[in-house]
Amino acid sequence: MCLRAEATRLNAVSPSLPSPTKEEEEEEKLGSLAMENGSSSSSSVPSTPLLKDELDIVIPTIRNLDFLEMWRPFFQPYHLIIVQDGDPSKIIRVPDGFDYELYNRNDINRILGSKASCISFKDSACRCFGFMISKKKYIFTIDDDCFVAKDPSGKEINALEQHIKNLLAPSTPFFFNTLYDPYREGADFVRGYPFSLREGVPTAVSHGLWLNIPDYDAPTQLVKPLERNTRYVDAVLTVPKGTLFPMCGMNLAFDREVIGPAMYFGLMGDGQPIGRYDDMWAGWCMKVICDHLGLGVKTGLPYIWHSKASNPFVNLKKEYKGIYWQEELIPFFQTVTLPKECTTVQKCYLELSKQVKAKLRKVDDYFNKLADAMVTWIEAWDELNPSVNAGTAAAGKPNGAAK
Amino acid sequence: MCLRAEATRLNAVSPSLPSPTKEEEEEEKLGSLAMENGSSSSSSVPSTPLLKDELDIVIPTIRNLDFLEMWRPFFQPYHLIIVQDGDPSKIIRVPDGFDYELYNRNDINRILGSKASCISFKDSACRCFGFMISKKKYIFTIDDDCFVAKDPSGKEINALEQHIKNLLAPSTPFFFNTLYDPYREGADFVRGYPFSLREGVPTAVSHGLWLNIPDYDAPTQLVKPLERNTRYVDAVLTVPKGTLFPMCGMNLAFDREVIGPAMYFGLMGDGQPIGRYDDMWAGWCMKVICDHLGLGVKTGLPYIWHSKASNPFVNLKKEYKGIYWQEELIPFFQTVTLPKECTTVQKCYLELSKQVKAKLRKVDDYFNKLADAMVTWIEAWDELNPSVNAGTAAAGKPNGAAK
Repeated sequence: MCLRAEATRLNAVSPSLPSPTKEEEEEEKLGSLAMENGSSSSSSVPSTPLLKDELDIVIPTIRNLDFLEMWRPFFQPYHLIIVQDGDPSKIIRVPDGFDYELYNRNDINRILGSKASCISFKDSACRCFGFMISKKKYIFTIDDDCFVAKDPSGKEINALEQHIKNLLAPSTPFFFNTLYDPYREGADFVRGYPFSLREGVPTAVSHGLWLNIPDYDAPTQLVKPLERNTRYVDAVLTVPKGTLFPMCGMNLAFDREVIGPAMYFGLMGDGQPIGRYDDMWAGWCMKVICDHLGLGVKTGLPYIWHSKASNPFVNLKKEYKGIYWQEELIPFFQTVTLPKECTTVQKCYLELSKQVKAKLRKVDDYFNKLADAMVTWIEAWDELNPSVNAGTAAAGKPNGAAK
Repeated sequence: MCLRAEATRLNAVSPSLPSPTKEEEEEEKLGSLAMENGSSSSSSVPSTPLLKDELDIVIPTIRNLDFLEMWRPFFQPYHLIIVQDGDPSKIIRVPDGFDYELYNRNDINRILGSKASCISFKDSACRCFGFMISKKKYIFTIDDDCFVAKDPSGKEINALEQHIKNLLAPSTPFFFNTLYDPYREGADFVRGYPFSLREGVPTAVSHGLWLNIPDYDAPTQLVKPLERNTRYVDAVLTVPKGTLFPMCGMNLAFDREVIGPAMYFGLMGDGQPIGRYDDMWAGWCMKVICDHLGLGVKTGLPYIWHSKASNPFVNLKKEYKGIYWQEELIPFFQTVTLPKECTTVQKCYLELSKQVKAKLRKVDDYFNKLADAMVTWIEAWDELNPSVNAGTAAAGKPNGAAK
């Protein structure tokens, strides 16, 4: 993939994984032993990392990635795509031993040319460039203020492993199972669950949660500055068809081949009238398209430890337009329908952009611009991903199943 | 209420709560102290029982109610309505100290006359007679093989108290909150949750879960005879609008004034072609009506301990028609719509009975009979509950809100 190679050369920051030192080899052995005994926090590091060659970890950042040290046992086997936001001349330090490529604004501009306008600047929305440039089937994206959480037994949670489990097991969007994920060990479909729906549908998205600092909006942050999330809810569930939810980009995984082109984080930050609605926008678009194509979206486990509340005053400035705009956006997304001809994610997304232009333009001219950026995003996606262009059609059944 | 008084006299089994003995008074004091210290299993017994005079506990049974001993600290302050199934000449023993009324088949026939045909015999579906005869605002119904479960800290769970909390707090059917119940202590609505939806809607139903023996159908019981539910999921969530779920009658509470007439458990057992679909039928009808009227349905906490798996071979015989019928019932309930004129639960239910007759008759003549029984049920309900006939209109907004 020449674009990637070029970017790598320019940045000269993509060392391949160095051979393990003797100490590291010893540690690895100890890890394996601990796993067998189930007696250590390393026990959740699988000896063969799941989907090692099929998943990229995408991290948007403006700072040195020291937070990776804590994730080392879980992330080191995987390839990282770092999207550097803000000043491109700043050097971002990545701890030794990680295999990564890094893109700053100059890279994005060079790679996408005029289409770079669809990628936000000075906002974590820029992460979606990483989704586009990846060539892997799966993406896990995480914020750099998120750390390893512990489950109630004190064991460190391998968030990535749980996301992969969520993505590899089907979803059940057409009927709610009261014992939650029916594919989980020790659970099943309960009495009264139609047998014809028990195969489920492919899972497109796995939305993970956060212990410690909850993902609140600025008004709630201001009202409840000390609230911390301490409740570990041991469940994964499918967000039912027809139901929208607030998707947070902090701790999120998805099947890029199946839903990638819908994971556009919009126009936020520098030069835009709002921020902090990037993941929400992606979540609403993505959910409508998953519902249409018969794909599943899960939420719940895994938890990460969200370390630091962002400044509520700054957030309020970024959010306040979104707070009243969303009152019109939600009814729009709740009632939007896609025609049967939309059989791929790209077709769905372009249709959605048309409807955004037609129906949300009256809310603010921003949505006119956003609708155009949605088209640009798809054009850029198809340019960088020419071969998997039609790959999404097979995954879902447009307007299929149950309802 | 003359009917009740008469039934009570006939059965001579409704002792009023005796004055507490000195020992009991001591215990109560200790309980209160323990609660303050949070150091004992008694700590979940509220010193003033919630809704003591506004809630009836309905128990269908064929046996002596020894299971109540374990529930004594939680249930004793409340009034019980026992619906005795099977041989009416059998004497059901109720532990001393409980305030109750008991109805056997002879009572039901005498009270309802020809309309008694809508109440099932030899099936726990008969419990809905208790819903009808009650004059309280709230109902909690529980099976007699359900015992007090413990939470992960080892504390005994006051299931009734949790149900009451669920019913008294609003529901959020129009948008999914990823941190589950936003009204719970330590939780709230997350970023991206529309502010206009944060008031929620009145909660009609609280569906509780089961540790130990899960509520599986006969095929799953046969395939997984040893599976036990050991996972305590610390969450209560609203089943989203437009989503059906399998409602189990084992551990269930509802606002009788708001949704009572929809809680009909159908024709099951003696003389009927199916069993074990009583609660499912009620759940599907109820959910469609709640969605129409803008009412909420919650599932999750509280757990009870389900002690004994029923015989899977007997269950299979009862269920097998339901197992294939439900493949047509679910699409029916997923697509049914109620006209705007249906502004009360009764009106909704009668409309639903018409649509059942029109659309499900072709599945089996049973549904013709069931549709008639649905009408009889409403007639009987209105006869026994003349004053609250119109009370439901105010609770919900037909076709209201969001979607």
